[in-house]
Amino acid sequence: MKLLEQKIKEDGKVLPGDILKVDSFINHQIDTKFFIELAQEVKRLFPDEKINKILTVEASGIGISMAVASQYDFCKVVFAKKNTAYNMSSDKYSVKLFSYTRRQEFFISVSKEYLSSEDNVLIVDDFLANGEAMNALTSICQQAGCKVAGCVVCVEKAYQQGRKRIENKGYRVEALASIKSMNDIGDIEFC
Amino acid sequence: MKLLEQKIKEDGKVLPGDILKVDSFINHQIDTKFFIELAQEVKRLFPDEKINKILTVEASGIGISMAVASQYDFCKVVFAKKNTAYNMSSDKYSVKLFSYTRRQEFFISVSKEYLSSEDNVLIVDDFLANGEAMNALTSICQQAGCKVAGCVVCVEKAYQQGRKRIENKGYRVEALASIKSMNDIGDIEFC
Repeated sequence: MKLLEQKIKEDGKVLPGDILKVDSFINHQIDTKFFIELAQEVKRLFPDEKINKILTVEASGIGISMAVASQYDFCKVVFAKKNTAYNMSSDKYSVKLFSYTRRQEFFISVSKEYLSSEDNVLIVDDFLANGEAMNALTSICQQAGCKVAGCVVCVEKAYQQGRKRIENKGYRVEALASIKSMNDIGDIEFC
Repeated sequence: MKLLEQKIKEDGKVLPGDILKVDSFINHQIDTKFFIELAQEVKRLFPDEKINKILTVEASGIGISMAVASQYDFCKVVFAKKNTAYNMSSDKYSVKLFSYTRRQEFFISVSKEYLSSEDNVLIVDDFLANGEAMNALTSICQQAGCKVAGCVVCVEKAYQQGRKRIENKGYRVEALASIKSMNDIGDIEFC
């Protein structure tokens, strides 16, 4: 999506350690008008799907999921909760994952009440890099036995393994902007 | 707001320890259609304000803030970030607060880039109880020198000190539902 690529080039900052900072419109301050445009693009990518629920993970996935939900007749958004400790509970779907940013193991979970085999889910997140979060969200959907229409992210680091991991599990992956490469002096190349 | 009171009575769960669980439509699963109705009520409460920014705190304040922003010409949403460690930084407004739920001190911060004296802010959150989060958000606004049109929450525990703390600082506080009392067998009385 050209519009997002342009915005990343203009407002994104590349920091040492392969970090793309898009705090000014996605991760800290949300440009809600722009998010509606992103959400309309998501709807174009998945036009006919009878999506009744958006699944994401707190916190920065919530904003874009709210915008996407508005394009699917304001369907429900379920956000997986993060915990540093495993909360053994029979009423939750729970998955362990590793945060490369924080160098820490943690868990995400979704109450069984809010995801079932009757749901047709679109998984939405802000970023896809190594795919830990997205992989965990698809695992939660497998536990719930729900249908997954696809996985959508705003920004993908195409040079990392995230997409491959998710596609290998049989899911369709769409990124609104795919970064082919970036370097510390701020050059960003898109696929 | 009668509609929200009714929804809390129908779908809310009172748990031991004075906990009101509204996971089915606010805190874990978001009823985005219902959120638009809540946001329209917020717009009725603050109709003439030239609000150009919504300020909230991650994670569960983001959803309602996205809905409220849609009523103010899709203005920007800034969500304060939570950290367990103090990150001394000259480019952030930062406040310490105490989580009574987690029995833990933590910090919230907002980058100076995204809040300034030119902003007219509506502070939005899901819950107001002892007012720790709301108080911290108003402190951040004081540091930024921005104008605060008011503070809005979905649900207020009116028997706790939150409202008083914020009003004593000179801010207008609005709650879409104000709980007068509740008990462990699930009775909820509204103001």
